[in-house]
Amino acid sequence: MADTKSKAIEESLTLQPRFDADGLVTCVATDATIGEVLMVARMNAEALAKTIATGDAWYYSRSRRALWRKGESSGHTQRVVELRVDCDQDAVWIKVEQMGPGACHTGRRSCFYRAVPLGQSGASVTLEFRDAEQAFDPAQAYRRK
Amino acid sequence: MADTKSKAIEESLTLQPRFDADGLVTCVATDATIGEVLMVARMNAEALAKTIATGDAWYYSRSRRALWRKGESSGHTQRVVELRVDCDQDAVWIKVEQMGPGACHTGRRSCFYRAVPLGQSGASVTLEFRDAEQAFDPAQAYRRK
Repeated sequence: MADTKSKAIEESLTLQPRFDADGLVTCVATDATIGEVLMVARMNAEALAKTIATGDAWYYSRSRRALWRKGESSGHTQRVVELRVDCDQDAVWIKVEQMGPGACHTGRRSCFYRAVPLGQSGASVTLEFRDAEQAFDPAQAYRRK
Repeated sequence: MADTKSKAIEESLTLQPRFDADGLVTCVATDATIGEVLMVARMNAEALAKTIATGDAWYYSRSRRALWRKGESSGHTQRVVELRVDCDQDAVWIKVEQMGPGACHTGRRSCFYRAVPLGQSGASVTLEFRDAEQAFDPAQAYRRK
């Protein structure tokens, strides 16, 4: 951790993203007002550059292998209030103003709508819905126009 | 997104983590009180199971290739208040009570101590320190006992 190269990345004021083998960094988006984690996604160099340049959240979809402006289908865009980078520069945190009713493609406000009660062990772990009411109808939001 | 398999993972109340090719899921740890993102790390199946069973945050270090109980060297453990899983079950969010002065090995409270001012474009992007005061001396906290 404390070697010279790490130290340079940790204390530098130059953005030097450490993209993984697939060319991606992890991005956590939280609601700028209430601090809730809305989603975790990936950014490639272009998505990160566009997010910084425009203040809109851009991601890279691994499943679709495509650059993606959040909300381009649903209208539920994310306006970035603050963007931070972590110590080793392989993750970014964006505080966003979530436009529209929600961030999750399932219709919830946040992608994190299930809790794992602690203290469980063994093969099967049971979840509980938490803040899982649908904020919008995904069939409506994502229909082809 | 809306295929049957995805739907089953999204609406299921059974934990079915979607580990990546390296056997890992992404974990975001936030401060349970103020909502600040403290760190982003990875968990393998064992780290996730231990976190759920014990309520202490366990991670998997890619650089050290080892399971790791957060704070085992520094004493700055994380007590999990709530654990959530995201829609496609490849990321978890833990709200933690951070023990000791900070989570970051550089001595800061959070790993996200630099902001990227928006509107910049081009080859070089300049960061600004934000909440970057050191909460503890890492040389002291991580010295070999």
